[in-house]
Amino acid sequence: MPASPIRKLVPFADAAKKNGKHIYHLNIGQPDILTPDIALRAVKNINRNVIEYSPSAGFESYRIKLLNYYKKAGIDLTLENILVTTGGSEAILFGMFSCLDPGDEVIIPEPFYANYNGFAIAGSVVVKPVTSKIENAFALPPISDFEQLIGPKTRAIMICNPNNPTGYLYSEAELEQLRMLVLKHDLFLFADEVYREFVYDRHQHHSVLNLKGLEQHVVLMDSVSKRYSACGLRIGALISRNAEVMQTAMKFAQARLSPPTLGQIAAEAALDVDDTYFRGVHQEYDSRRNLLVERLQAMDYVLCPKPRGAFYCIARLPVDNSDRFCQWLLEDFNYKGSSVMLAPATGFYASPDAGQDEVRIAYVLKKNDLNAAMDCLEEALQVYPGRTLN
Amino acid sequence: MPASPIRKLVPFADAAKKNGKHIYHLNIGQPDILTPDIALRAVKNINRNVIEYSPSAGFESYRIKLLNYYKKAGIDLTLENILVTTGGSEAILFGMFSCLDPGDEVIIPEPFYANYNGFAIAGSVVVKPVTSKIENAFALPPISDFEQLIGPKTRAIMICNPNNPTGYLYSEAELEQLRMLVLKHDLFLFADEVYREFVYDRHQHHSVLNLKGLEQHVVLMDSVSKRYSACGLRIGALISRNAEVMQTAMKFAQARLSPPTLGQIAAEAALDVDDTYFRGVHQEYDSRRNLLVERLQAMDYVLCPKPRGAFYCIARLPVDNSDRFCQWLLEDFNYKGSSVMLAPATGFYASPDAGQDEVRIAYVLKKNDLNAAMDCLEEALQVYPGRTLN
Repeated sequence: MPASPIRKLVPFADAAKKNGKHIYHLNIGQPDILTPDIALRAVKNINRNVIEYSPSAGFESYRIKLLNYYKKAGIDLTLENILVTTGGSEAILFGMFSCLDPGDEVIIPEPFYANYNGFAIAGSVVVKPVTSKIENAFALPPISDFEQLIGPKTRAIMICNPNNPTGYLYSEAELEQLRMLVLKHDLFLFADEVYREFVYDRHQHHSVLNLKGLEQHVVLMDSVSKRYSACGLRIGALISRNAEVMQTAMKFAQARLSPPTLGQIAAEAALDVDDTYFRGVHQEYDSRRNLLVERLQAMDYVLCPKPRGAFYCIARLPVDNSDRFCQWLLEDFNYKGSSVMLAPATGFYASPDAGQDEVRIAYVLKKNDLNAAMDCLEEALQVYPGRTLN
Repeated sequence: MPASPIRKLVPFADAAKKNGKHIYHLNIGQPDILTPDIALRAVKNINRNVIEYSPSAGFESYRIKLLNYYKKAGIDLTLENILVTTGGSEAILFGMFSCLDPGDEVIIPEPFYANYNGFAIAGSVVVKPVTSKIENAFALPPISDFEQLIGPKTRAIMICNPNNPTGYLYSEAELEQLRMLVLKHDLFLFADEVYREFVYDRHQHHSVLNLKGLEQHVVLMDSVSKRYSACGLRIGALISRNAEVMQTAMKFAQARLSPPTLGQIAAEAALDVDDTYFRGVHQEYDSRRNLLVERLQAMDYVLCPKPRGAFYCIARLPVDNSDRFCQWLLEDFNYKGSSVMLAPATGFYASPDAGQDEVRIAYVLKKNDLNAAMDCLEEALQVYPGRTLN
């Protein structure tokens, strides 16, 4: 099992910090946005003497309120379609384990969220990558590329929309292509939509849950981590209208007893947050995105398609090897006492040698810090010994 | 994957409650003991604006304090030996997935905690049961029984000590037998010691972590759920001195990002609880155990060895089939407006047809309620149509 691409450089960052260097963390999707006060207050005001297990499917009160949340997002569900999970991570685990047997294959457009791979390996599931290209802004690869990979072991296609790590937002037409493909080959369609709210420039997010005729095919992985800047709650959801999938998932849910009680209390309260919260968050990310992409695009030989969603972008850099470059940034580089931590994109590709000149950048810092981090990167690219284009 | 033996009857219990029947829940290990106030206060006083991920291995401050906890229990560890998990459940998952490949076998004395099976199935691991007998108070089965099962695929032996569901506490001599066996065949020894504090009659708990020469073999699964009556926190730990096991487990830990932040805050605070808390808890369980076993042993044709640990016992009842009997208790039986929910022991055995006249009873209710529940059971055994001995 490979090491996490966003965490494998942590020891180098820790060493750099011990040496007094300031590190701007653009490697991990840990936002600095405040968790809604209403969620924090629910925790501070808990009125319980015993922190008991919740039901394995999650508190019913929370699941009922989630129905409303999805309804507001234009998605009609029933209580039986929702299983509360320990973070989006467990939703991925349960989804994969409930639908796939060891040896089964899932096709995923790469670059993809690296932990899909971790859970696939845990379940002895084989990930078949289909490559999306930075030159096309990471749009959905041609359907023929998917079809070339479909064989007797293929059981599912998995997407992340808006996408981590690329920020790409799939269009309605692209989702329609996937719909036809899934129906034609009778596959599951797994979708990670944890960045549903993070869509910019007045674009629309289209959920796979609204694709006609896919009621038995779609399995959604969701999470409150990014939505409410509450990654530490570890609350997500597995959602499907396929009763058999949900029954199997429920057995996994019972085996681990319950999702976290305190996290559910906070997540349930967060559902009552005012819309102004989201407007503020949206505005903040939008302006960070604009700043980041503008800075990157202004750097020589840097390619960075402007993302329409999530809070990541992938940039192509004029470097020999992004793993080496990112480590060098931490170990050997210093600009005004600071450096920057990025995630080498290699870890987001399943194809060997892919992404060697790309990095993932999370715009999870305030604009001042983002600017300072970009100053570092700009300078670093000038002096990096492994620079490839001049 | 089989349904959870402690939860599969929940729909019948829910239906009974809807009909106005009071149900005494002795089926599940959800204690009514108060969570230490110091843990609840830590949550109420959180001073954070953003509920962030913790490190994948858990907060370092918590892990450092855990070192002290284990030292007090006579167990010497280093920080690298401790990985904080999402409940004991995830510790079992990580332990199995880190040490065993699909097709590998683990030998477990039955009856055993049913969820071991769930995680084994998830990892395509084969559980080989070796039967412990109620006539022997569920003592460790003869080592020759283990050896008969050891083959080229055998990679581990797993115990729970004190035992759920039997309450059995392994003696030092029994652990020494296991030590020799594990060394002889170069196996892993998995141990679930989440009931470490729940040992009665001045007996001593002996941790497998103190077995000489097993540093590379022992993998411990731990949890704060029972210790602090805080099941809903979902905080446990995977512990091993085997660096390779811990490195692999760390990859699984990174894939799921982090254990719950709020749960860790509470668990860390709980470590400062006064010893009087444990004394009170201990006294309470001890008196419940005495009451429960006395009541059961006074019933005709009921066999119930007195457990030395945990807060469960297994009782043999004069019934045709414990699944049928437990369902009948919920659906058809009523004594003074009440009935009792027990866990059929069949779900704790991997051998087919084993445990059909046994139930697991958790003594997690106050003595008044326990007494009333035993009144129900006593009456029920008189009138149950499937009674076998008269």
